[in-house]
Amino acid sequence: MYSFENDYSEGACSQVLKALVDTNYEQVTGYGLDKYCIKASELIKKELKNNDVDIHFIPGGTPCNTLAISLLKPYEAVIACETGHINIHETGSVEAIGHKILTAPTKYGKIKPEQIEEIVLKHPDEHMVKPKMVFISNPTELGTIYSKQELTDISEMCKKHNLYLYLDGARLGSALVAETNDLSLPDICELTDIFYIGGTKNGALYGEAFVIKNEELKPNFRYLMKQKLSMMAKSRVMGVEFIALFTDGLYYKLAKQANFCAQALKLVLKHYGIEMYVESFTNQLFVIMEDKLLRKIKQEYIVSDWAKYDDTHTVVRFVCSWNCKKNNIKEFYNFLKKL
Amino acid sequence: MYSFENDYSEGACSQVLKALVDTNYEQVTGYGLDKYCIKASELIKKELKNNDVDIHFIPGGTPCNTLAISLLKPYEAVIACETGHINIHETGSVEAIGHKILTAPTKYGKIKPEQIEEIVLKHPDEHMVKPKMVFISNPTELGTIYSKQELTDISEMCKKHNLYLYLDGARLGSALVAETNDLSLPDICELTDIFYIGGTKNGALYGEAFVIKNEELKPNFRYLMKQKLSMMAKSRVMGVEFIALFTDGLYYKLAKQANFCAQALKLVLKHYGIEMYVESFTNQLFVIMEDKLLRKIKQEYIVSDWAKYDDTHTVVRFVCSWNCKKNNIKEFYNFLKKL
Amino acid sequence: MYSFENDYSEGACSQVLKALVDTNYEQVTGYGLDKYCIKASELIKKELKNNDVDIHFIPGGTPCNTLAISLLKPYEAVIACETGHINIHETGSVEAIGHKILTAPTKYGKIKPEQIEEIVLKHPDEHMVKPKMVFISNPTELGTIYSKQELTDISEMCKKHNLYLYLDGARLGSALVAETNDLSLPDICELTDIFYIGGTKNGALYGEAFVIKNEELKPNFRYLMKQKLSMMAKSRVMGVEFIALFTDGLYYKLAKQANFCAQALKLVLKHYGIEMYVESFTNQLFVIMEDKLLRKIKQEYIVSDWAKYDDTHTVVRFVCSWNCKKNNIKEFYNFLKKL
Amino acid sequence: MYSFENDYSEGACSQVLKALVDTNYEQVTGYGLDKYCIKASELIKKELKNNDVDIHFIPGGTPCNTLAISLLKPYEAVIACETGHINIHETGSVEAIGHKILTAPTKYGKIKPEQIEEIVLKHPDEHMVKPKMVFISNPTELGTIYSKQELTDISEMCKKHNLYLYLDGARLGSALVAETNDLSLPDICELTDIFYIGGTKNGALYGEAFVIKNEELKPNFRYLMKQKLSMMAKSRVMGVEFIALFTDGLYYKLAKQANFCAQALKLVLKHYGIEMYVESFTNQLFVIMEDKLLRKIKQEYIVSDWAKYDDTHTVVRFVCSWNCKKNNIKEFYNFLKKL
Repeated sequence: MYSFENDYSEGACSQVLKALVDTNYEQVTGYGLDKYCIKASELIKKELKNNDVDIHFIPGGTPCNTLAISLLKPYEAVIACETGHINIHETGSVEAIGHKILTAPTKYGKIKPEQIEEIVLKHPDEHMVKPKMVFISNPTELGTIYSKQELTDISEMCKKHNLYLYLDGARLGSALVAETNDLSLPDICELTDIFYIGGTKNGALYGEAFVIKNEELKPNFRYLMKQKLSMMAKSRVMGVEFIALFTDGLYYKLAKQANFCAQALKLVLKHYGIEMYVESFTNQLFVIMEDKLLRKIKQEYIVSDWAKYDDTHTVVRFVCSWNCKKNNIKEFYNFLKKL
Repeated sequence: MYSFENDYSEGACSQVLKALVDTNYEQVTGYGLDKYCIKASELIKKELKNNDVDIHFIPGGTPCNTLAISLLKPYEAVIACETGHINIHETGSVEAIGHKILTAPTKYGKIKPEQIEEIVLKHPDEHMVKPKMVFISNPTELGTIYSKQELTDISEMCKKHNLYLYLDGARLGSALVAETNDLSLPDICELTDIFYIGGTKNGALYGEAFVIKNEELKPNFRYLMKQKLSMMAKSRVMGVEFIALFTDGLYYKLAKQANFCAQALKLVLKHYGIEMYVESFTNQLFVIMEDKLLRKIKQEYIVSDWAKYDDTHTVVRFVCSWNCKKNNIKEFYNFLKKL
Repeated sequence: MYSFENDYSEGACSQVLKALVDTNYEQVTGYGLDKYCIKASELIKKELKNNDVDIHFIPGGTPCNTLAISLLKPYEAVIACETGHINIHETGSVEAIGHKILTAPTKYGKIKPEQIEEIVLKHPDEHMVKPKMVFISNPTELGTIYSKQELTDISEMCKKHNLYLYLDGARLGSALVAETNDLSLPDICELTDIFYIGGTKNGALYGEAFVIKNEELKPNFRYLMKQKLSMMAKSRVMGVEFIALFTDGLYYKLAKQANFCAQALKLVLKHYGIEMYVESFTNQLFVIMEDKLLRKIKQEYIVSDWAKYDDTHTVVRFVCSWNCKKNNIKEFYNFLKKL
Repeated sequence: MYSFENDYSEGACSQVLKALVDTNYEQVTGYGLDKYCIKASELIKKELKNNDVDIHFIPGGTPCNTLAISLLKPYEAVIACETGHINIHETGSVEAIGHKILTAPTKYGKIKPEQIEEIVLKHPDEHMVKPKMVFISNPTELGTIYSKQELTDISEMCKKHNLYLYLDGARLGSALVAETNDLSLPDICELTDIFYIGGTKNGALYGEAFVIKNEELKPNFRYLMKQKLSMMAKSRVMGVEFIALFTDGLYYKLAKQANFCAQALKLVLKHYGIEMYVESFTNQLFVIMEDKLLRKIKQEYIVSDWAKYDDTHTVVRFVCSWNCKKNNIKEFYNFLKKL
């Protein structure tokens, strides 16, 4: 069975794996202070065209999100889409460290500046939490991406109301190389206060590069990492991985491969009359599928039920990973043909 | 200026005040273990027709709500209306102790069993919080009340999905004596797992009687009270108050007076063509008022803006307390007449 | 039976009670924004000779302590004596909001500057919490008090290491009027960042005046109060109480009465050969008592076992309240005489 | 420079690394539900001679400790040695999730049953936290180990007072193969409620096998893992690692190599008259070293300062890893010889 379940079904990409093997026996210090982490930070800063950011390597996306929000004061809240990963799929990690999430309804996972402002205005006094951060992800939970104009508008609204802007980049590579994208890594760095560049879903065994640009949020961050269970003894692994990922544009190449396959898959699905639930140009597709067909597909393929669409249809998620091959899509085409 | 701002603008009702004065110099032990608290508990148990409940005296409503929710495990969540007090007006107290609130949209503050079930079904696995308690208030934030049938249906839905049912009774007296009410205190005790009988908003200086019926939730509750900042040294005050409130039906008489005035006020407002935002039979009214008129009223009366209704109207809250007099309503009638 | 159990066995002192009765029916706004709270703040500022402090009325001592510590960042810790109230007698309230207490051993409840420094130096990096606040109480848990020189030395050590100094003044009145005291309220205000003036244990029904001097700690404190369950609807009660307490020196008079009785009691105890465990000049005495004698005393008096001293002796606490009378001590003298 | 700094300075042992490479491209599901994690669990259960335990793979030791303690109720506390890792070296992670640590003084990191009982007896009521779990580590922070009799005695004391016993096995391999050890993995499983078998410090890239034996503590543990930031997308890595570690006794072989080198190092140090601070038979040595000598050693070797011993001596930690070779010790011998 082939799996379109997600983009972390395989181990690491070959270059990352090789780098891990090559450096394996070298003795280095622990907890992210080793030479690999330092070099990886430098490579990323160069990519961001910003030498003044702090970079920390964090083992996963949920830890990144929780850490970002742990920078708030106890009564400060974070604004997010209803569909936001922190709101639904993190088992209340944000609330577990004491913060409320204020949500805005969105159909395709993108929040609008006016929704942010509306929430701020609805929270005028001390009987309510105080909105202080905006959480977005790019791509969103539904594979859609923010344009440069959209992100700029959100960023300005945040400045207007003195809110931090945090961007969850679990699949940032896929956004950056999407056909419809006009944002660069330096843009994202400029427009946000904190964000992370996801490794787990783009060819690393695990690990994300967490970037803090806002000076206020930098001090003592390593204390939070340790306390919030996110400081790995052998952080070297993440250093080594990110050096590989940011050498010769590997990070982009892997994401391109994932997007390429997903877009090819989209053509296949459309060819067979299967409608998109949302138009995505990244490595996740959300389609409206008849339940009968879905059952047949599941005999040979792993895909995810996303939501009931109606009595006879389901919204189904297909994800292509960095390791997906043209051939996998061709086989799926042939498989559908037979049905 | 007369205040319709809320039902805690005055001190204590005369009987409560007298009882406090009469018992003032007696030495008793602290922290709720004194003879007054014990006697008050017995009176309340009699009123509930249930000798097996545990009763604790808690200084306020937000502490009661937080304490109830602190009985959950870290990953368990509470279901509430979007308008629920815990969701909006408690500065994230629930999240501050680590729990997520899952909300259902409601127009007039009443949740429906099918909304509860929908939320439960949407939370099937460990990537999401686990719904485990339903929070309702009676009367609701909008002055509406649950019927016996409605509360029974909610209670059964909770049992079906193994959820605790908790009822916030900040203004429970007002609900119980409302013209349209068919629920009794013993009914509420039977249909819920925990609830509280509000004192602060019905003639006490402060204090609520927190009732735990579910055996699972009883052990070591006093540890939570102390840890969650809700164990008063001179809890005797609350014991003395609740003895007075549950002697000769005072609790009901005070609530009746508040409701009577509010219902008279409703007639006055309707007489002058002011529309109700929601039909309430308790001591809170929510009316749709032209902003021009509102400004004039605010020169002589204190009322609360609840929400913008449209460009020229506001939803305004009027509350009558246990100390409101027929005459206060008459004067308001005359005041409106002049406008 | 007469109780030397504590100083919160009775209700309120007569002047406070009268003021509550006199103002009872007046309508005022809630949550500490009423004219009584404002006036009480002004009286206290005058007493402190400092107009730039923020004053908030909080329902009890444990809430005050927790609120002070809630001003820290998640990884910051508070330094306290092992015997500190926050360390032993608050059911982990401090840890419940996420902070570690770093303790110093002390025999009689007083921390020394060098102990503070030792703890700071032992916490050099992010694998440990970061000490950021010192908690002391005056009088201490053992009835001892800090001299002006001692408090100055602690204050300077705190400045040296960039620590906030917080003073728990649950029984501050008793310290200020102790025979051996040389500290004034303005001194305390000058030497600390935050402190509170206890009402509950000095004649109020409940309530403490929480004083924030350090500018960094002032913003948005009311959000914390609400979230941490410490904002009372009828905060007017505390406003009215503190006006009474800080009119005509009542606060000091009540404390003097308590101290006077305790010191008389000390003479009585010493007269009968009962040894002091610690020399106290405030309203709490800690004595070493033979268990046989203790059993007899407990037939007529309520006192508290503090700790086992040896196989046949117990450290016993006697507390005199603001309402204790010369005659109560005389009767105790006669009672002992008979034994 | 050769590093005796710790046992996580290198990457993974060769067998683990090979297994990761061999399985790298296989698609498996995420979050610990894959076939590798299942097989690793089965191997470990066989090793424990207990099929009824639940096994979860957790990314590190601090997460394991925090997760174990997150099973407590909010007012429950954990008992540990003052030197315990959770008490000193985890930046308050335990307090950050709301729990107090009650500490017992120990010179060499081993708690005694009577110390546990003393703490329990000192916490009799709801004004204090309620002791509910005992935390020990084996080997301890100082490299010492518990004998079967000692662990049995602690286990019985825990049962007597209804406490959970949790054992931190970050370096469990090293304890199990120590010359002086008489405990087996099945013994540990029988005598504790929860424990973990450390991988990070014994040849894995990262990961610990967390074992829950007590039925009460099993339900919904995966919710806690996710919420407490300890559920890795590619948990397969840990499954693959633990299969390798528990095939052909590799786990023990690696630990034996580390112990062997440490014991050889001990002979070398003793040969040169360097005194042990504590007699350790595991892979950590704590020695009392003249500061002059220490400075010279640090020019060629990385070791850790553990504590000041006196004005001219320091307690220094040497750790040998699974990858330490006889030759590294020989070279150190030659190095010392030259000094």
